Amino acid sequence: MTEAIRAAVFDELAAVGYGRMSIEAVARRAGVGKTAVYRRWPSKLQMVIDVVSDVVGYDVPAPDTGSLRGDVRMILDIAARALRHPLAGQIVPDLLAEAARTPDIARTLERALRDTQRGLGEAIVAAAVTRGEVGPATDAGMALDLALGPLYWHIAVLREPVTKSYLDRLADTVATALAVPRPPRAADEAH
Amino acid sequence: MTEAIRAAVFDELAAVGYGRMSIEAVARRAGVGKTAVYRRWPSKLQMVIDVVSDVVGYDVPAPDTGSLRGDVRMILDIAARALRHPLAGQIVPDLLAEAARTPDIARTLERALRDTQRGLGEAIVAAAVTRGEVGPATDAGMALDLALGPLYWHIAVLREPVTKSYLDRLADTVATALAVPRPPRAADEAH
Repeated sequence: MTEAIRAAVFDELAAVGYGRMSIEAVARRAGVGKTAVYRRWPSKLQMVIDVVSDVVGYDVPAPDTGSLRGDVRMILDIAARALRHPLAGQIVPDLLAEAARTPDIARTLERALRDTQRGLGEAIVAAAVTRGEVGPATDAGMALDLALGPLYWHIAVLREPVTKSYLDRLADTVATALAVPRPPRAADEAH
Repeated sequence: MTEAIRAAVFDELAAVGYGRMSIEAVARRAGVGKTAVYRRWPSKLQMVIDVVSDVVGYDVPAPDTGSLRGDVRMILDIAARALRHPLAGQIVPDLLAEAARTPDIARTLERALRDTQRGLGEAIVAAAVTRGEVGPATDAGMALDLALGPLYWHIAVLREPVTKSYLDRLADTVATALAVPRPPRAADEAH
């Protein structure tokens, strides 16, 4: 029964968003009584945090394709598939919006996303350092920002289709940018 | 009076989000009657689209610092300032969430964001091509995805603070990535 309720939480989140979602509607969609929901979670907030952190924080295994470019390309592939899912397209921005108002949601999302990203970034950069593809001072956080940021921006903000060719070029660019030694700072930079 | 209503629309969007926002609350906040709002916009949707597109779609002049790295750094500075504003942090993800449910909002945001990005990207890449900093085939869309994507991901998704040093390194990386000729595709790439 818990699984039916968890599924109903996602469907309701996608359909009406966190703000308009009610425990009553979740129970109705799951085909259970309201008390069955309240027995598991004391509030809508607790329910959503529990159900979402279960999914967002799941362990994504670090790819091991033998090259930095291949690893980045595989992470882009997994992320693009997840972001193209209609549920993700509706639920993720909704929760981010809610996070700006609800510190408990913000903390849950931050912890899950940052920890997942940190783990992946450190694993693929460490492997690339071992292979001699990048220097030991390579910033693992920046590496994943460079890959996931443009992808998210493209799919979720600009809402433009992401093609295989786009993912190929993005992976090329990220691998190239990380492999190149940082140039000396230009004198004419803007502040 | 229209200005007071426009300001009230932003404050209400930030406070409760599009879903829970009502014309009554906007009127109350603006200190006007409900009919004053309805006289200007027939619905909440029309009101939000008009008010938001007025701001999102405003002309951002292309920077002209004399180098690609400087131009990217300046765009990052402007975008970071906008995204750090508390209103942006609440309203942008909320509208993106709503866009997934409301095609009119989606179209308005897409048009404003894509057009602004395209204009800026083409201007700074064309200038860099003229200066010989990048090749004539440089992808202007990718250039801004690479700059704005990580920034948005960092501020709005991971909700981590963005420092001057982060913006400096991001500008370095983007300028470097674009300046380098694309390497031949590795044979062991992932699919």
